[in-house]
Amino acid sequence: MERCCEMAALAREDACELDANDPLRSFRDRFIIADDQQIYLDGNSLGRLPKTTRAKLIEVVDQWGSELVTGWSEWVDWPSRIGDLLGQKLLGASAGEVVITDTTTVNIYKLCAAVLESQKLSAGRAILTDRREFPTDRYVVEGLATQHNLELRLLDGDPVMGPTAAEIEELCEDGGVALIVLSHVHYRSGAILDMAEINQIARRHDATVVWDLSHSAGSVPVDLDGTQTELAVGCTYKYLNSGPGAPAFLYIAHERLARLASPIWGWFGQRDQFKFGDRYDPDPTVRRFFTGTPNVLGLSAVSEGVSIAVEAGAQAVRAKSIKLTALLVDLYEQQLEPLGFSLVSPTDPALRGSHIALQHESARQISQFLRERCGVVVDFREPNCIRFGVAALYTRFVDVWDGVERVRSAVQSGEFRDVETQSARVP
Amino acid sequence: MERCCEMAALAREDACELDANDPLRSFRDRFIIADDQQIYLDGNSLGRLPKTTRAKLIEVVDQWGSELVTGWSEWVDWPSRIGDLLGQKLLGASAGEVVITDTTTVNIYKLCAAVLESQKLSAGRAILTDRREFPTDRYVVEGLATQHNLELRLLDGDPVMGPTAAEIEELCEDGGVALIVLSHVHYRSGAILDMAEINQIARRHDATVVWDLSHSAGSVPVDLDGTQTELAVGCTYKYLNSGPGAPAFLYIAHERLARLASPIWGWFGQRDQFKFGDRYDPDPTVRRFFTGTPNVLGLSAVSEGVSIAVEAGAQAVRAKSIKLTALLVDLYEQQLEPLGFSLVSPTDPALRGSHIALQHESARQISQFLRERCGVVVDFREPNCIRFGVAALYTRFVDVWDGVERVRSAVQSGEFRDVETQSARVP
Repeated sequence: MERCCEMAALAREDACELDANDPLRSFRDRFIIADDQQIYLDGNSLGRLPKTTRAKLIEVVDQWGSELVTGWSEWVDWPSRIGDLLGQKLLGASAGEVVITDTTTVNIYKLCAAVLESQKLSAGRAILTDRREFPTDRYVVEGLATQHNLELRLLDGDPVMGPTAAEIEELCEDGGVALIVLSHVHYRSGAILDMAEINQIARRHDATVVWDLSHSAGSVPVDLDGTQTELAVGCTYKYLNSGPGAPAFLYIAHERLARLASPIWGWFGQRDQFKFGDRYDPDPTVRRFFTGTPNVLGLSAVSEGVSIAVEAGAQAVRAKSIKLTALLVDLYEQQLEPLGFSLVSPTDPALRGSHIALQHESARQISQFLRERCGVVVDFREPNCIRFGVAALYTRFVDVWDGVERVRSAVQSGEFRDVETQSARVP
Repeated sequence: MERCCEMAALAREDACELDANDPLRSFRDRFIIADDQQIYLDGNSLGRLPKTTRAKLIEVVDQWGSELVTGWSEWVDWPSRIGDLLGQKLLGASAGEVVITDTTTVNIYKLCAAVLESQKLSAGRAILTDRREFPTDRYVVEGLATQHNLELRLLDGDPVMGPTAAEIEELCEDGGVALIVLSHVHYRSGAILDMAEINQIARRHDATVVWDLSHSAGSVPVDLDGTQTELAVGCTYKYLNSGPGAPAFLYIAHERLARLASPIWGWFGQRDQFKFGDRYDPDPTVRRFFTGTPNVLGLSAVSEGVSIAVEAGAQAVRAKSIKLTALLVDLYEQQLEPLGFSLVSPTDPALRGSHIALQHESARQISQFLRERCGVVVDFREPNCIRFGVAALYTRFVDVWDGVERVRSAVQSGEFRDVETQSARVP
């Protein structure tokens, strides 16, 4: 992958030219931009509002108002229909492998518990995850390890690049690992793991990987079938722009389905649900991992968010995303490294997702100052990290240029030191 | 409670007069009524759309669009704030005992699993529920019984009145029951169980009751503290008018909290969540039962739905609801019983919630005919049951009168026999 080294001395006009030549440039118009002066570099946390989502939500609310309960004859298929669109067009899954349901946390729990249950009688007695994995993934497996009296093995990994294949291999070598939970793109460093390679290691050692695709879906191409992935979950409110707390997704490869039972025997997972059968009889499809009544408003927003990403195309999104983070890193090297920032993301764009992380001893104050006084929205992660996210569908090259310039100005002037810091409460 | 017997020969004008004297009559204007000719008697399945909810949803969507990720500084408190409003004003709970989270199914699972975990070392080795309990409640406990290798005891109960205190007492007598799951108002018959009495029986036998309040919240007053209820869940999309698949609620009495851990160790249940701590450290409050990122659009609809119910007042809603079902039963006796219908709900309004169930051998065809050709929306439940729900906030007495008249006409004429029946797919 090119490093865009020629951009190192880029002027603002050059960034504008990159925008002019951007094949995805028209997609920015598909989103509400309430404040064109604001530079939003936090789509890795919460994506922007698509204009069609606003319209669709009003339409669905009115459908509730007019059709009332009969609306369900349409709504009841949405979790599968939208899941298929996402799965087939963006994640490399087959029809019937992806559904929209619950939250990422609940989905991780269901899949991990199902794996442990299915392996009850086998040798696997440990769960493996990354010491630096996203908190909810770590907490869920910590809970399952405690409840099932299993060992919890933590990969030390590299703080920037994440765990290596060799390290994973080593911790699996005794055949003691039943379950591995890892993010495809790391929430902090943005490092991309090699799903195919890790899946192979797991298979060799009779372990199952549950992949968290929260930071890849909609930004980094995922090939679930091609990488022989068995199980995955992910969130839709980041690069899929589906709104705060939007319903999450869950993937089960067809080959793996038969041996898996959800720990939560909900009525939406029942075969012939509306027959209200006496005993639980799990649906023969991935729908058996449904729990209760799906949130229709949330689903309608996922539908729109996914549709726009599908229209843009995963490869085009990735191509622009790489150029955006490359520009970001080049400008960081030129403008921010001298001011005490250090890059804690992979330097090779091929090995990172759509955000980068910079460390600075005053990261908390700086990120708050940027947000409150400079119109630059980035996010702070404890203890000293600022994430800069670019979303190919709406972030312009000039936003990256202006954003870095505002950061430089804020830090060089020392003005950020005046801000009174508060605890961040941003998921 | 009065039976409104004097209404037996009521003319339509009399129903109109009841409406004219209805202290809640103005509340109907708070809802979108898209088709004033339609008679909607299915608020027990999906409540109507409040006008303020439509406005609020647009406001929150625009808040997402303009505030983007910074909106979370407000949104993050909604699950507790709205939970408190619901809990304190409508359910007789104290502050900090009710939260809005996940689905009813996931909440039942979390509470039941938590009870079983907390009783691991005690004598309780069975779960007790009603053979006719709502499917998701039955399936969830069937799953937990299977996973924990516990006995599942089923109350036979009366098909109309539900299980008696004596029957529950009998099945608990050997001290073998750890957990009881029951609905306050039965989803089919509408029968109300005595929460205080059953809680007492449970306590005497060292069992814990998880109450499902899905069919009572917003229609039948609930006194969680007064009845010494320890645990409860419920849905918001019926009488709380919060929209299809709206987030559900969960209640834990303060006294019970210390001993309970959620089976799903999610990051929203973590103390100081945004510190991203290394190990799971459950929040000291009921928030430890949170899982993933809450759905903000869904929550905003719950906020509006609950607010309207609070404004009307639980006692006023109940008083009108009793009069409505009494009128319904009186008209049934006069008009429908001769046509082959039979009442499978308690005859005493004090012992039933806000819907009644009628059996008829052609129930499926009739309910479909009513919906498609007569503008009467009721719901069919396998194998031969039609539920007629009245919602005090928007159902008029004249709706009940007109509805019964349309049912009489459809059945007496035999026209309903022409309809081609389809499978109902309505949650």
